Amino acid sequence: MEYRIEKDTMGEVKVPADKLWGAQTERSRGNFKIGPQASMPLEIIEGFAYLKKAAAFTNRELSDLPSEKRDLIAKVCDEILKGMHDDQFPLVIWQTGSGTQSNMNVNEVIANRAHQLAGNVIGEGEKTLQPNDDVNKSQSSNDTFPTAMHIAAFKKIVEVTIPGVTKLRNTLKAKSDEFKNVVKIGRTHLMDATPLTLGQEFSGYVSQLDHGLKALNNTLEHLSEIALGGTAVGTGINTPKGYSKRVAEYISKFTGLPFKTADNKFEALAAHDAIVESHSALKQLAVSLNKIAHDIRMLASGPRSGIGELILPANEPGSSIMPGKVNPTQCEALTMVCAQVIGNDMAIAVGGMQGHFELNVFKPVMAANILQSAQLLGDACTSFEEHCAKGIEPNNDVIQKQLNNSLMLVTALNPKIGYYKAAEIANTAHKNGTTLKVEAVNLGYLTEDEFDEWVKPEDMVK
Amino acid sequence: MEYRIEKDTMGEVKVPADKLWGAQTERSRGNFKIGPQASMPLEIIEGFAYLKKAAAFTNRELSDLPSEKRDLIAKVCDEILKGMHDDQFPLVIWQTGSGTQSNMNVNEVIANRAHQLAGNVIGEGEKTLQPNDDVNKSQSSNDTFPTAMHIAAFKKIVEVTIPGVTKLRNTLKAKSDEFKNVVKIGRTHLMDATPLTLGQEFSGYVSQLDHGLKALNNTLEHLSEIALGGTAVGTGINTPKGYSKRVAEYISKFTGLPFKTADNKFEALAAHDAIVESHSALKQLAVSLNKIAHDIRMLASGPRSGIGELILPANEPGSSIMPGKVNPTQCEALTMVCAQVIGNDMAIAVGGMQGHFELNVFKPVMAANILQSAQLLGDACTSFEEHCAKGIEPNNDVIQKQLNNSLMLVTALNPKIGYYKAAEIANTAHKNGTTLKVEAVNLGYLTEDEFDEWVKPEDMVK
Amino acid sequence: MEYRIEKDTMGEVKVPADKLWGAQTERSRGNFKIGPQASMPLEIIEGFAYLKKAAAFTNRELSDLPSEKRDLIAKVCDEILKGMHDDQFPLVIWQTGSGTQSNMNVNEVIANRAHQLAGNVIGEGEKTLQPNDDVNKSQSSNDTFPTAMHIAAFKKIVEVTIPGVTKLRNTLKAKSDEFKNVVKIGRTHLMDATPLTLGQEFSGYVSQLDHGLKALNNTLEHLSEIALGGTAVGTGINTPKGYSKRVAEYISKFTGLPFKTADNKFEALAAHDAIVESHSALKQLAVSLNKIAHDIRMLASGPRSGIGELILPANEPGSSIMPGKVNPTQCEALTMVCAQVIGNDMAIAVGGMQGHFELNVFKPVMAANILQSAQLLGDACTSFEEHCAKGIEPNNDVIQKQLNNSLMLVTALNPKIGYYKAAEIANTAHKNGTTLKVEAVNLGYLTEDEFDEWVKPEDMVK
Amino acid sequence: MEYRIEKDTMGEVKVPADKLWGAQTERSRGNFKIGPQASMPLEIIEGFAYLKKAAAFTNRELSDLPSEKRDLIAKVCDEILKGMHDDQFPLVIWQTGSGTQSNMNVNEVIANRAHQLAGNVIGEGEKTLQPNDDVNKSQSSNDTFPTAMHIAAFKKIVEVTIPGVTKLRNTLKAKSDEFKNVVKIGRTHLMDATPLTLGQEFSGYVSQLDHGLKALNNTLEHLSEIALGGTAVGTGINTPKGYSKRVAEYISKFTGLPFKTADNKFEALAAHDAIVESHSALKQLAVSLNKIAHDIRMLASGPRSGIGELILPANEPGSSIMPGKVNPTQCEALTMVCAQVIGNDMAIAVGGMQGHFELNVFKPVMAANILQSAQLLGDACTSFEEHCAKGIEPNNDVIQKQLNNSLMLVTALNPKIGYYKAAEIANTAHKNGTTLKVEAVNLGYLTEDEFDEWVKPEDMVK
Repeated sequence: MEYRIEKDTMGEVKVPADKLWGAQTERSRGNFKIGPQASMPLEIIEGFAYLKKAAAFTNRELSDLPSEKRDLIAKVCDEILKGMHDDQFPLVIWQTGSGTQSNMNVNEVIANRAHQLAGNVIGEGEKTLQPNDDVNKSQSSNDTFPTAMHIAAFKKIVEVTIPGVTKLRNTLKAKSDEFKNVVKIGRTHLMDATPLTLGQEFSGYVSQLDHGLKALNNTLEHLSEIALGGTAVGTGINTPKGYSKRVAEYISKFTGLPFKTADNKFEALAAHDAIVESHSALKQLAVSLNKIAHDIRMLASGPRSGIGELILPANEPGSSIMPGKVNPTQCEALTMVCAQVIGNDMAIAVGGMQGHFELNVFKPVMAANILQSAQLLGDACTSFEEHCAKGIEPNNDVIQKQLNNSLMLVTALNPKIGYYKAAEIANTAHKNGTTLKVEAVNLGYLTEDEFDEWVKPEDMVK
Repeated sequence: MEYRIEKDTMGEVKVPADKLWGAQTERSRGNFKIGPQASMPLEIIEGFAYLKKAAAFTNRELSDLPSEKRDLIAKVCDEILKGMHDDQFPLVIWQTGSGTQSNMNVNEVIANRAHQLAGNVIGEGEKTLQPNDDVNKSQSSNDTFPTAMHIAAFKKIVEVTIPGVTKLRNTLKAKSDEFKNVVKIGRTHLMDATPLTLGQEFSGYVSQLDHGLKALNNTLEHLSEIALGGTAVGTGINTPKGYSKRVAEYISKFTGLPFKTADNKFEALAAHDAIVESHSALKQLAVSLNKIAHDIRMLASGPRSGIGELILPANEPGSSIMPGKVNPTQCEALTMVCAQVIGNDMAIAVGGMQGHFELNVFKPVMAANILQSAQLLGDACTSFEEHCAKGIEPNNDVIQKQLNNSLMLVTALNPKIGYYKAAEIANTAHKNGTTLKVEAVNLGYLTEDEFDEWVKPEDMVK
Repeated sequence: MEYRIEKDTMGEVKVPADKLWGAQTERSRGNFKIGPQASMPLEIIEGFAYLKKAAAFTNRELSDLPSEKRDLIAKVCDEILKGMHDDQFPLVIWQTGSGTQSNMNVNEVIANRAHQLAGNVIGEGEKTLQPNDDVNKSQSSNDTFPTAMHIAAFKKIVEVTIPGVTKLRNTLKAKSDEFKNVVKIGRTHLMDATPLTLGQEFSGYVSQLDHGLKALNNTLEHLSEIALGGTAVGTGINTPKGYSKRVAEYISKFTGLPFKTADNKFEALAAHDAIVESHSALKQLAVSLNKIAHDIRMLASGPRSGIGELILPANEPGSSIMPGKVNPTQCEALTMVCAQVIGNDMAIAVGGMQGHFELNVFKPVMAANILQSAQLLGDACTSFEEHCAKGIEPNNDVIQKQLNNSLMLVTALNPKIGYYKAAEIANTAHKNGTTLKVEAVNLGYLTEDEFDEWVKPEDMVK
Repeated sequence: MEYRIEKDTMGEVKVPADKLWGAQTERSRGNFKIGPQASMPLEIIEGFAYLKKAAAFTNRELSDLPSEKRDLIAKVCDEILKGMHDDQFPLVIWQTGSGTQSNMNVNEVIANRAHQLAGNVIGEGEKTLQPNDDVNKSQSSNDTFPTAMHIAAFKKIVEVTIPGVTKLRNTLKAKSDEFKNVVKIGRTHLMDATPLTLGQEFSGYVSQLDHGLKALNNTLEHLSEIALGGTAVGTGINTPKGYSKRVAEYISKFTGLPFKTADNKFEALAAHDAIVESHSALKQLAVSLNKIAHDIRMLASGPRSGIGELILPANEPGSSIMPGKVNPTQCEALTMVCAQVIGNDMAIAVGGMQGHFELNVFKPVMAANILQSAQLLGDACTSFEEHCAKGIEPNNDVIQKQLNNSLMLVTALNPKIGYYKAAEIANTAHKNGTTLKVEAVNLGYLTEDEFDEWVKPEDMVK
């Protein structure tokens, strides 16, 4: 491989000649061989592209950055956002806890690419842009990385998570409406209970997701606060007056999302409670979705020896050994995602709780986990909606048979004959394997007509 | 011990003669010998007292419960709320997952105590009130227990957690104001960084708690929704028309808190995402408080070989073997609470994710964990405020000395001479154990006057 | 209330006159009003009693403690172990993270009680024993508290957890043997699969618990290492030569358990990985037990609209509103315990990871969590065994019917006609609601006789 | 793109013409668009390659698989193990919870590649090997996937984790020996305490890792048990006699690792407690390493305003804004890994606890998490060792100065003058900012000579 020489304050480093990155990126590649290469999420790099461009515009306005430098920075940022340089960001999550080296990776790529755009050859001539003095002007890793985190997480949540969950929520709502007259047996403690409609059962799922979406939305305000302008320790050293507010406006403009400068920059660098907060809502959704998906697979269990009240779409052969088997695979993918999100919540808490003084140095791990959770939840809900939820059908024969068999219809008699006598009827029918009506009449507690009038499943679901 | 005979639908049970509880409570005592006795939180019992009273009033209004029965129920509930019967609730958390037996414990105690209040002897004569038909009228364990959970958790959060955290927040805010002119060295990566004021450092803590309190408040609406009226499976079987809304109004009236009936009762029985949601905010506070308390103990470390910038109140001898030792014990109590709350968050997630069909049967464990977390966080913040935060003083000599020693003041030179030359100055001073000024001048990058004009810590904290 | 004056190095404190504790305990009561009183587990106090007695004997042998003092200390320790002073330990978990104040609580109670035993009145005359110089001789909180933790956790695990889990394991093994000829349908993905015996199904549970018990036993060696002798920082300052080894021998003798002195005292004070390690095995058991208990309740679901293959003992009325309902309440109690243990594992990890320098100051929270988990798991397994497992019966009619209905018996044909044709048979029977035999013959893939010979459920379980 | 037609029991599917996979893989690609493509770890695919080859050899020996088919299967498996087909496994973790589709992916790739090796063109002519009947012969996804998991996790742990941790352990041991005479101040509660040597401090780290490695080794026996031979539900349906044992021997031979057939196949399919168990030991290592890395960065904090007792290698410029800053970046990467591993432990527990009946369907998520943790821990320890631990040097000047300053040297006087008088000396010196000796003499408790004789730091570390 061919190399060129790049320099930083520690000296010279050999960098692959065809790469845009510089000395500090290359050092990091060598110093942090932990897990697969390039694990730092590209969404973070995109967040940096937005903020570097915004900083350049603000530095032009409020400081002494020349227009040409601003435009070069902006142009490379746009290229990055178009995905033209995805292979120029080789660093891993497991680096400096402030993400300094990914900040420098972006600074170096912008500087070198700008050098090219200005008609030069990388490594030759005076640098068109200085990575630290121009591209990183009025910035620090300590405020850029958390800003990139917030941009990336906010975007992922509003572009992937919320649409995915909402799509599933809407389909479940449509199913709830569609099933509103399907009266079926209820189950509590996994045991037969009084009836409800299948529509009501699904309405519970809709209500869970509605509450979850609301909880997630509640967290977005905190997540919309960005650290940029705090620089090294939160004081904003080396930024021009008015910088924080203005740079946030540019970010808001470039992303089309309502970012604003954090009121308190000391928190914004030293703690990432906004990530903890938003991820908590993702965890809540995972808790909800695990319940929903597990219910649906249990309701669809069978086909002959399970509960069998729902029929799910058959998307693939279910078994490599058992011919003809069809499995609730979308439920399984979704619940596995839920397990991951619940685990990620703990990783984020462990990172979030260990900020020290002016800086939390668990930034990359927190960022990677929230981005993964937000992506997986959105994708898994979309997949579950498309390949399972929208095709769910009731198995009406089974539903009807189980409803009529139920001993818990006896509950309707409590107000008529009291809990104790009603219990006696149910227990006797259970013991004898008979029906409630037979035993109710046998025991002399009511007539056949009274039974027919009082025990109507369809009246028990209002 | 003397016993009397009590009965339920399964037959006779011997109950200690001096106890108010009945057959089902006694069965539960025998069937669930798990952990210490009476671990079911009394706050849950109080929640039941509020709702039983509210149900009695509503049943009088909307159904056929006689006024005398209503008044007897209400009277016993008031006695329970006064703490007169705390020893009548011997059951454990680790019982039926719906809390059925604690519901019956309350029903039985109310019925038997009412029998006494009506001038009778327990176990003699016809029961004045039937536990199931009168006290539990228009109710099920499945809607009462989650209602009691929400009442208890909501009350604990607004009466203990929020006041405790707020008290600490206010003291930290006062300290932040008090310390606003104490310029000190900043630390990132635990390493010396550019300066800030001690007031700014504390303002970050205040901002964390402000955000945490806001997050907690955001969850209260979900928590204010109560399940009562859903009865067995959410359909509200065996309740009179208008019951749900009216009983919530009574609960709201009796507790003085803004409870309302849940829009969707199916969710309210089958999932406890509101508990997951509120506890997530408690976890967020734990994450914040761990950061704050750990910072403070590191800042106070020493007295001679630590950072030593803060002086904490000395509340007790610190060591049984090292004479004269004083330790940051309030920080330790608080961070231990944080560890517990973070663990409890996982217990709640594991319970919350496993609801099945119409009922989540992890109610008691979820209730116990949120009540513990809410209590401990509130108490620990109060304790930390009283015995530590309000007595914190800066150690000005140490602060001043460390500030002046700092090599990171060089950052102020970036805009003047560029990052690279500034780095050279700092590295040289570090190597030689000298000051920045000496090396800046030696290296010929600026004059002594320029240094004095450009490197002013007090100007670096704006 | 009446008070007497006690003193420590910080001055005078008023202590309730009828209590045996002294100044430092009283300070702690005032300084740490966090959660319910006296939450520090009594098992820790017992651990202290063992070690204080052992230290007294060792100090007599190797140092200058007079025999009379040794005997007084030993006598009070024996009284504590008999439970005579349970109300003398009012402190909470949420105190100094080294548990210093509970160590002093024990020292003070021993000293004052010894004063009484020596015929004196507390608070009058010269102290018979000095809490620090005599009772705490050759000790520090830093080595005594972790020693008490290990004694308490080890004892709880071998006296409660292992016997409880083993009892359940043995009953499940007996059931596995009893059910060895009950051929039933298997279920994978909750869907019908090839058959197995009920005995085989239960054998999986037994194997899980066997592996879990083995894993737990593997951790006991680390847990048997005790810190005593490390004193303040692990160097053993102020202990006589040979102390560590000798005091561990005494502890081993007094407890009857194989404790030994830790090879490395620096670890033993600064990290509690032994607690992390043992609790991980408790968590593993919780993971196993959750699977087992949930399987059993699903297998017992019904009675009419569930899987219904098992019949569980009916221990109590299941519902306050649905008469005649019986629920799998022991499964619920056990799975709630599992949720708690899994949460506790995280609390312990969070505490364990935050040791600093020579001392981990999350000792009490770690101790409280492992003791709770060990107790709950042991108790819940015992309860589950007594009130559920040993009474489990197969519902043979249901099992037989579901077995014969199963389409997955077709798997036996793979080696005869290949996976693809077998799938066609199963799919056709599923579509038509018919039997495999009918469709196998109709499709012309085999004769009736061949089917009868090749598809025998009892041959499919070998 | 060009396509060919592939078929499975559900019908025809278009597959990219240049790919080796077949119908079921292609269905899965379409049905599970969740997260990034090809996230199923390649280590799992390698595990499959080992086991498919072993199954082919066993099927030749014990069943009717022709030698030519065996050899073709083996040849493709060897190609896979050489990494020649890494791009043929496009599926994601978030698929069927049994990993069925990855099993079929392997079966299809082997069949199609064998067709090529036999001189044919894929999609033309009769298939040389049937994916289900030949490649999957005597297997099910339900026993192959967990076998692949165990192979992959076991290999990763013994090839990456244990060597990485051991390397770090050995370097810390060498440092402990090297630093054995460096007497320094101890710190408990982050506060000055009695002295120890730097070697002793490091010996605690070594002891933690020794215990952690032992705990990890303890889990390997469970992990060495493989499910293969259990097929669909654990009964081993459609396997020849002797298959389980023989196939495990082949796997052991091909991998060079001590795998053996699981005694109980029902557990091996339905529960993955072995993964829970091994990951618990990884979590324990994470807990230990977090303590160690955090200690080291605190000890190295400064350079001027921290503790400053250690000097870490400077690997890269530490700040994009603060010139000359050097940060403990390896500590940060390692502690971020610890946070991830602790989170992963929860994801694994949540998956492990939810097995149902004969199958746990959280296999891929559990596999992915343990593989990530094992890789990251091994890599991070290696990185930490190379770029930090082996270059750690004591800052002797600082260490000496802080030692001599310490007030806690007073502890040495306890046995001479008692705890109370010693406390008085320390408190007085602290208040007056003087030395212990000055105040000891002033207070008249001992002479200067006595002080010099009794208070020798180097005697306090034995």
